[in-house]
Amino acid sequence: MSFTITLQLTTATHAYCNATFKKNSYFSKFQSKPIYHSNPLIQVLSFQEKMSSLPFSSPKGNGTIKSSLIDPDGGSLVDLVVPESQRAAKISEAESMPKVKLTKIDLEWVHVISEGWASPLRGFMRENEYLQSLHFNCLRLKDGSVVNMSLPIVLAIDDETKEKIGGSTDVALTGPNDALVGILRRIEIYKHHKEERIARTWGTIAPGLPYVEEVITSAGNWLVGGDLEVLEPIIYNDGLDRYRLSPQQLRKEFDHRQADAVFAFQLRNPVHNGHALLMNDTRRRLLAMGYKNPILLLHPLGGFTKADDVPLDVRMEQHSKVLEDGVLDPATTVVAIFPSPMHYAGPTEVQWHAKARINAGANFYIVGRDPAGMGHPTEKRDLYDPDHGKKVLSMAPGLEKLNILPFRVAAYDTVERRMAFFDPSRAKDFLFISGTKMRAYARNGENPPDGFMCPGGWEVLVKYYKSLQAQEADEKPTVLSA
Amino acid sequence: MSFTITLQLTTATHAYCNATFKKNSYFSKFQSKPIYHSNPLIQVLSFQEKMSSLPFSSPKGNGTIKSSLIDPDGGSLVDLVVPESQRAAKISEAESMPKVKLTKIDLEWVHVISEGWASPLRGFMRENEYLQSLHFNCLRLKDGSVVNMSLPIVLAIDDETKEKIGGSTDVALTGPNDALVGILRRIEIYKHHKEERIARTWGTIAPGLPYVEEVITSAGNWLVGGDLEVLEPIIYNDGLDRYRLSPQQLRKEFDHRQADAVFAFQLRNPVHNGHALLMNDTRRRLLAMGYKNPILLLHPLGGFTKADDVPLDVRMEQHSKVLEDGVLDPATTVVAIFPSPMHYAGPTEVQWHAKARINAGANFYIVGRDPAGMGHPTEKRDLYDPDHGKKVLSMAPGLEKLNILPFRVAAYDTVERRMAFFDPSRAKDFLFISGTKMRAYARNGENPPDGFMCPGGWEVLVKYYKSLQAQEADEKPTVLSA
Repeated sequence: MSFTITLQLTTATHAYCNATFKKNSYFSKFQSKPIYHSNPLIQVLSFQEKMSSLPFSSPKGNGTIKSSLIDPDGGSLVDLVVPESQRAAKISEAESMPKVKLTKIDLEWVHVISEGWASPLRGFMRENEYLQSLHFNCLRLKDGSVVNMSLPIVLAIDDETKEKIGGSTDVALTGPNDALVGILRRIEIYKHHKEERIARTWGTIAPGLPYVEEVITSAGNWLVGGDLEVLEPIIYNDGLDRYRLSPQQLRKEFDHRQADAVFAFQLRNPVHNGHALLMNDTRRRLLAMGYKNPILLLHPLGGFTKADDVPLDVRMEQHSKVLEDGVLDPATTVVAIFPSPMHYAGPTEVQWHAKARINAGANFYIVGRDPAGMGHPTEKRDLYDPDHGKKVLSMAPGLEKLNILPFRVAAYDTVERRMAFFDPSRAKDFLFISGTKMRAYARNGENPPDGFMCPGGWEVLVKYYKSLQAQEADEKPTVLSA
Repeated sequence: MSFTITLQLTTATHAYCNATFKKNSYFSKFQSKPIYHSNPLIQVLSFQEKMSSLPFSSPKGNGTIKSSLIDPDGGSLVDLVVPESQRAAKISEAESMPKVKLTKIDLEWVHVISEGWASPLRGFMRENEYLQSLHFNCLRLKDGSVVNMSLPIVLAIDDETKEKIGGSTDVALTGPNDALVGILRRIEIYKHHKEERIARTWGTIAPGLPYVEEVITSAGNWLVGGDLEVLEPIIYNDGLDRYRLSPQQLRKEFDHRQADAVFAFQLRNPVHNGHALLMNDTRRRLLAMGYKNPILLLHPLGGFTKADDVPLDVRMEQHSKVLEDGVLDPATTVVAIFPSPMHYAGPTEVQWHAKARINAGANFYIVGRDPAGMGHPTEKRDLYDPDHGKKVLSMAPGLEKLNILPFRVAAYDTVERRMAFFDPSRAKDFLFISGTKMRAYARNGENPPDGFMCPGGWEVLVKYYKSLQAQEADEKPTVLSA
């Protein structure tokens, strides 16, 4: 059975956020149970299970899993991994095609597209899709319906590669290591107007935007779109592939757990007790609304992030500790990796983050202050108005079926000595601990205020920053004093 | 009766554009008729008629004119001019409110909004509308339907004015001459994020964008939105008010002429024979499709334009000559002024140009190469991909009910000695006469190639550029030789 929850919670934000949080009260009912088993504490499918569940029976990926909670965009999940029976023939075919070499981040997008996070998108965008994404943040489908699509998902090629492709209609994609990855069919090559793409996506063209500097500046002057086929599931062999659940696998997991609501939390930072506060409070509210088994999808972003963000492996270890320490409840939490690279494009990007979670089966999406935002790269201010993200999300075409849950900012309450929703009536009692401040504590081996983060999680960060300092020290040239 | 033409012509472009044009053949049937009467050759309502038709019977502007060809956006035309019976009371009320002083261009927007060109918009945008416009180029209405709205129509105020407004919910608007113009009710003040507005609207923040330099750079750091009431119709007393027909007046005129199709042509340049070619060809094609009485809306933009564009009064005189000379047929043409200021924002702005013409009753819209485009202000290239305008227009949310008529570029055929659709198979025979080139001809007193523009129209331009040179000479300081 498939249905859509149409309850719109946007206007209920304030009531929701004003709820009082009582420290640890949420897990009292679990504390008598043996929930602190060691490995895997976080309930995920094994990597073997992941592999065996792919590819889908239908090569087109249609007619497979539909959520019991929310339909994928376009009605069914896209799956572009070639069935094993056809793999050898496809490889042989691809070998004779002109080759397009992917960067590490291109490959992350191949991963994203192939598993259906961008459903109904079936490959890198052709110009028609690119222009709709750039100007309208959504795509109109053949049946007249609209799906959200706020980031251009495109593949850039240079003049030389374009020349090499010539009149070919299909090209083979190779990874950074030159291994065959997939095929792009019925291709269309069009101009890569970089300045316009950047301005319309980020709302600025100031130098220093991480994704722009990493990906776009050095990219070719052409984009190539087409229908993607991936020869085998994308894996990273970094010890974290077991967390890389596809939208199909996540939907299965939610069904398996008999979830009647799934609320997604996107993050690219360590989980502190402020995050935990709002995730637990969300669950409490959903229970109060009558849901019997709301499941949290704790969904760290796993693709490209900027240099000063905490790396994925450290974050995953930190998240594990947060569950081990009982700050979040493993019985009602699924931790998995969202394979997309990060744009830091604020209100434009938060739509992508939400849309992809629809495809993963989440029907509630938590959005905070300044989602996907960062400091302006050349001015002393936030790049985006911190309130625009949640506002734009609540207006975005194609996201009507998703319940948006905005929340108030959490800060350290110096009186109660815990993270709490900020209360402007006693603003002086609150301490805002930014990412920069948090990193400074960890780097200097100082402890943050008691109650900011669970001790196990904090230890992971301290260890990471110590290793970073050791590495930096090694890299410094030795200067002999005279 | 009200119905929407759903025939989509976008894909028929090439067939449409390949039609052969025979010089003057279209008007042979009119040539025996006494159509060359002098004044007004262009059939418009008199200014008196214009004034007497305002205000509408309903102060809310609902329940009045609906097109027989295409519905206004939101179902009915917005009319925000206060009924005469209420004027005195409103003026007295406005006098006690905090004042916001409008610039010349703000006043053009008041004109635009008050007559319903931006229907269903009922005032300067509040943040909710602003964000939807900026990110999605469209607004979602309460009934779930979507209307196009690609340009933010906003009113900027500075810190001092914001301070002065304080907690007032209503403000009075005064013109550049300090006269009371209208009231803005239930106001909302929000931040004017200029860089983001510029980047998302123009796809660049390069210095030298005309509207940005004229309007945005010097504007205040706040925007004020609210419901507009205009105390009396906006007039300019420049001898051209009789051409400033409101959407309601245009719809009446089309009904009066018993039009069964209205095709709009937006321009901000003199009409040359290439323009005429495609307007006449459009009419021919509509007749071939079975329409009995297609009417051309020749609709020059009358608001702010950049300094090197030909001024409105000269253009209007030139357009008159084009009709006098029989290049366009007065019997099937309505010439009127579109009061909007020009953004030069290419694919984003062309949607506004088309949307406003829906409200004016046009169900066909002609779009050419690089609509609303210009050269990049700091690089040697077009600011926009010249094909994006028509592509974006054909995809734009809320414009589905409008028939988009793209056309191929026209150029001077040196063999046939006339303007013709460019034929790439004999490219060397064609001469492209850009606006810059045309202005150089006129400035130097040279004639363009025979057949480029009708002699009467050309004379108007020559006269204008001569007066400009005389004026420039007058302004130069006299240098005495030693």
